Amino acid sequence: MLKLTSMAFTPRPFRAVALVGNFTDTRVIESMQTLAAHLHGRSRCVIVDAASTVDFGAVPVRRVNEQALGTGVEARTPSDSEVELIVAIGGDGTMLHAARLAAPHGVPVLGVNRGRLGFLADIGPSDMRDRLDEVLQGSYVEDRRTMLQAQLQRGNQPVSQCHALNDVVLQKWQTGRMLDFETWIDDRYVNTHGGDGLVIATATGSTAYALSCGGPIVYPGLDALVLAPICPHTLSDRPIIVPGTARIEVRLVERIDTRAQITCDGVSLGEVLPGDRLLVTPASIGVTLLHPSGHDYFRILRSKLRWGRGDRTHPEPDTE
Amino acid sequence: MLKLTSMAFTPRPFRAVALVGNFTDTRVIESMQTLAAHLHGRSRCVIVDAASTVDFGAVPVRRVNEQALGTGVEARTPSDSEVELIVAIGGDGTMLHAARLAAPHGVPVLGVNRGRLGFLADIGPSDMRDRLDEVLQGSYVEDRRTMLQAQLQRGNQPVSQCHALNDVVLQKWQTGRMLDFETWIDDRYVNTHGGDGLVIATATGSTAYALSCGGPIVYPGLDALVLAPICPHTLSDRPIIVPGTARIEVRLVERIDTRAQITCDGVSLGEVLPGDRLLVTPASIGVTLLHPSGHDYFRILRSKLRWGRGDRTHPEPDTE
Amino acid sequence: MLKLTSMAFTPRPFRAVALVGNFTDTRVIESMQTLAAHLHGRSRCVIVDAASTVDFGAVPVRRVNEQALGTGVEARTPSDSEVELIVAIGGDGTMLHAARLAAPHGVPVLGVNRGRLGFLADIGPSDMRDRLDEVLQGSYVEDRRTMLQAQLQRGNQPVSQCHALNDVVLQKWQTGRMLDFETWIDDRYVNTHGGDGLVIATATGSTAYALSCGGPIVYPGLDALVLAPICPHTLSDRPIIVPGTARIEVRLVERIDTRAQITCDGVSLGEVLPGDRLLVTPASIGVTLLHPSGHDYFRILRSKLRWGRGDRTHPEPDTE
Amino acid sequence: MLKLTSMAFTPRPFRAVALVGNFTDTRVIESMQTLAAHLHGRSRCVIVDAASTVDFGAVPVRRVNEQALGTGVEARTPSDSEVELIVAIGGDGTMLHAARLAAPHGVPVLGVNRGRLGFLADIGPSDMRDRLDEVLQGSYVEDRRTMLQAQLQRGNQPVSQCHALNDVVLQKWQTGRMLDFETWIDDRYVNTHGGDGLVIATATGSTAYALSCGGPIVYPGLDALVLAPICPHTLSDRPIIVPGTARIEVRLVERIDTRAQITCDGVSLGEVLPGDRLLVTPASIGVTLLHPSGHDYFRILRSKLRWGRGDRTHPEPDTE
Repeated sequence: MLKLTSMAFTPRPFRAVALVGNFTDTRVIESMQTLAAHLHGRSRCVIVDAASTVDFGAVPVRRVNEQALGTGVEARTPSDSEVELIVAIGGDGTMLHAARLAAPHGVPVLGVNRGRLGFLADIGPSDMRDRLDEVLQGSYVEDRRTMLQAQLQRGNQPVSQCHALNDVVLQKWQTGRMLDFETWIDDRYVNTHGGDGLVIATATGSTAYALSCGGPIVYPGLDALVLAPICPHTLSDRPIIVPGTARIEVRLVERIDTRAQITCDGVSLGEVLPGDRLLVTPASIGVTLLHPSGHDYFRILRSKLRWGRGDRTHPEPDTE
Repeated sequence: MLKLTSMAFTPRPFRAVALVGNFTDTRVIESMQTLAAHLHGRSRCVIVDAASTVDFGAVPVRRVNEQALGTGVEARTPSDSEVELIVAIGGDGTMLHAARLAAPHGVPVLGVNRGRLGFLADIGPSDMRDRLDEVLQGSYVEDRRTMLQAQLQRGNQPVSQCHALNDVVLQKWQTGRMLDFETWIDDRYVNTHGGDGLVIATATGSTAYALSCGGPIVYPGLDALVLAPICPHTLSDRPIIVPGTARIEVRLVERIDTRAQITCDGVSLGEVLPGDRLLVTPASIGVTLLHPSGHDYFRILRSKLRWGRGDRTHPEPDTE
Repeated sequence: MLKLTSMAFTPRPFRAVALVGNFTDTRVIESMQTLAAHLHGRSRCVIVDAASTVDFGAVPVRRVNEQALGTGVEARTPSDSEVELIVAIGGDGTMLHAARLAAPHGVPVLGVNRGRLGFLADIGPSDMRDRLDEVLQGSYVEDRRTMLQAQLQRGNQPVSQCHALNDVVLQKWQTGRMLDFETWIDDRYVNTHGGDGLVIATATGSTAYALSCGGPIVYPGLDALVLAPICPHTLSDRPIIVPGTARIEVRLVERIDTRAQITCDGVSLGEVLPGDRLLVTPASIGVTLLHPSGHDYFRILRSKLRWGRGDRTHPEPDTE
Repeated sequence: MLKLTSMAFTPRPFRAVALVGNFTDTRVIESMQTLAAHLHGRSRCVIVDAASTVDFGAVPVRRVNEQALGTGVEARTPSDSEVELIVAIGGDGTMLHAARLAAPHGVPVLGVNRGRLGFLADIGPSDMRDRLDEVLQGSYVEDRRTMLQAQLQRGNQPVSQCHALNDVVLQKWQTGRMLDFETWIDDRYVNTHGGDGLVIATATGSTAYALSCGGPIVYPGLDALVLAPICPHTLSDRPIIVPGTARIEVRLVERIDTRAQITCDGVSLGEVLPGDRLLVTPASIGVTLLHPSGHDYFRILRSKLRWGRGDRTHPEPDTE
């Protein structure tokens, strides 16, 4: 059975809630102010990034360093009000950012979108207070998403590493020339690719950059990875789907004008040199997304991909 | 870890071996004669289709009805020489046919190709005797492949059903007009598609018709299905990957000139009428392929998709 | 310069107007009745298919055999009220049908859509009377579209032939097996394809079936053909664009279970046997579409392909 | 009729021949030395890049500044031995380079490949002397290719410009974030794209980067451009084919983290800022490629795309 989500039997109290978002976007600021007041009215402690200049008026908020938003406590400061929920306000990019803050601490993330629904942030601004109330009262579904760990090795020494919820991407950088690189899966040689790079995406990331590269949609309940070549030189160099437990290794081959970078969820991990190895493995951490009850992955998919509109009919009206 | 295959700890004796192939193809006939003599020399009982007119000369062969090839015994005839191995001689089409004969009885299948290597039949004609000897001596890898069950329902009554190792395909039939059909996964509505049809493929079938329809390659060790629309009217109607345990339902929508059929591994299951339902579920049976030791899925992939040739180099020479 | 259209310097009087549409569709019937009354009020002679059962009440209409709709006169019956305009009411399928009626007689076609705009029928039902008035008064753009001629040859003898505005398609028929066929362009051998068939599309047809087969959008002002393989077995078998003057020849190769048909704009031209040749050449006739002033091909493209919506902005609001 | 090429009625004498190639590649150096000696033996004047360190032994060569290779004369130095042929030795990259040198002066280019045949360089190293002799004797086909002119404008002022035989590419640069940009064709708004960029390719360039981006193959005898989006965010954002005379304008839209560059045949034209405009128009110059008699574009296509091999047969054996 497809089982994406399950009801929490022991609802979490969510006593302290961190608000995360791009505080230079006025729509985000307005939602933040509304939600802070609402949470305060529900006797929740509100925590925000100390760097934020958002004016919350009379609403008391606790300001901590951004890196402490996942816990609500600055390093080594004991506290009885640790963050129990992060509300991310913005698009899927904000969700990715919040996931990186939340994942190491096991704090769940709820996404509020500014405009159109996102794949990850599926609460709209119009009914965000009602939806938040439902969640505070324990009516929600939990949606556990796996993450990837990427490590860049040079001369068999780790140079840098990071986590990704969507994807780890090896891509050409500051060059109009293609890359040559080899792929290995669980120590088995797969292919030598020429092209603009390679996307290694989780099921979550399958609807992001990997989709633009010709990859398929992977149902989030399936623990699998997409290896999607970016603009491959060889036309039969097609996306490959492997178990989520696979260990992917990519080696950059020496070539004229090779310049490449690795990014994790769009954030640069650093430059890759010929001979360097990128290792991608399942991360030991993951992130738990919360959705309102009635969450339907396929409804979001239909909305985002503009399926089932126009001259087509289907039994269940899209109310998106 | 990617684990496609495993060594059998208790090698099977393979006392009775059935030879399956298209006995109107002279290359297949020659291989059959060679292998029958070789197996006889190795004291194995050789079993062939009673309908075959192949002349095996002095080599004793037992001839049974094709449907009994998977057992070597006609219905209700007790016997101590039940078939313990099917050797399929031909291309991947012959392998699919042999798999249907073998699967209900749990008999493993070994594939001998006439020419180029296939995805499933990976022993070439030049060294087939040596490779067969290795297998008879217990040196092989077992490769378990899942199968699909397809059932066509009309008015909630089953009309017909079949098994497939590669794919179940709903496709337009005898019409230049497209179909409209709805897809449901585990009772959740997914999409209403317009197009030439839908391929529901196993990992095994991902490199067959589904690949021509824009689907990805699915590593055989991953229990997943590909739902690949055929020439979809909506450009964002992309392949979806779901767990192998999913229950897929497809309903044909009434439309001018709609004519459609279902095929299982290319064999027709019958005409589909508007309102009919196609149910695809994991089959209770599967098939075990045997490969020579040293089998490497990615090497076959490189050979079949012509990767890594020409101006590219890689550390491991392709000996295909 | 891209020049799709040009103003007619000597506006045509359009004294006799034929209405074409699917007269079993109630929305089409209503539009037909409205337009007939409107045209009569503008002192135009209205001509409809004799097979139509549409009740035009007090509005006088002349009923002729469908094949005579392009002229308004039955064969060998001289008349001073020959059809000078065909108004096609329906979707792009109705436009294709009207084009076949109109093309041999050089009568222009104006398309009225029932619902969403089509690529060819770009007048909506809400303002169809105003738009028709503009056209009757000479305010329109002419859009000349080339057509294809398809001829099926058996043993070098023509068996059948037809014209197409969108595409000539060779496709598998009543079989789950792929076809093998060879393509020749201007007597030069191009390729032997395995797959479901081949679409040979005009620029007009590039946004129809060929687009679902992976072909590009061809600007209608470019005289070019798309050869798009349908679900090709070889992944590098990609669409080819050739001059509109090219002579395409396709030969079906003998293969197990080969069954194939040729369709012209979706209408069957007949079965193709191994050894048969399909010849596709520029037709000596074409069709002139009329559009309201201000017609913009790219606006229709944006609407049909759902570009530029949602989170994107652009300077010119889509009023679709 | 497809007419790619035509015999020159008045064979050119080719009295002075320039050799162009990467003189750090030993295979190129060997071919250069062989060809220089051969040309000298045929009483031709041989001209090479003054920066080259290749040792031509006793063979007299004239060394000029690379920019003068297209003429064989340094600026303002009158001479009676102007270059009448450039022989490019290497792959298609070398051909692009040679084309840029040759085009302004109308000098034809002959391509010698080091290894596999290229789309442009279609003489192999094994028979290059015989093929060159044929050309010197007037037995060749001329193949005229159009080029593009790209101009970058900032505040309506031209900032930089260049020519391209293959393609002009707008692409993201030193960022993992996608670009937003608008496309205009002949001053008509087409689309606002999100993605990695846009390839504007000639028919010649259609088999280069544009093909990796999902574009079609455009027959070189068709004067048309491919606009192929790179990894587009919107799945219906498909390649568009327009007349070769079209004027393409691309405007970069302001967006977080936008960094983009324009490259012409892989050579950087400079950074693009939000608000900048890229104008692409037909170049006033083009390049004439020479091919040995019997040149067949489709044979090269079959070879490069690995068509028609393996289990397929066709009447004309590929001798590649």
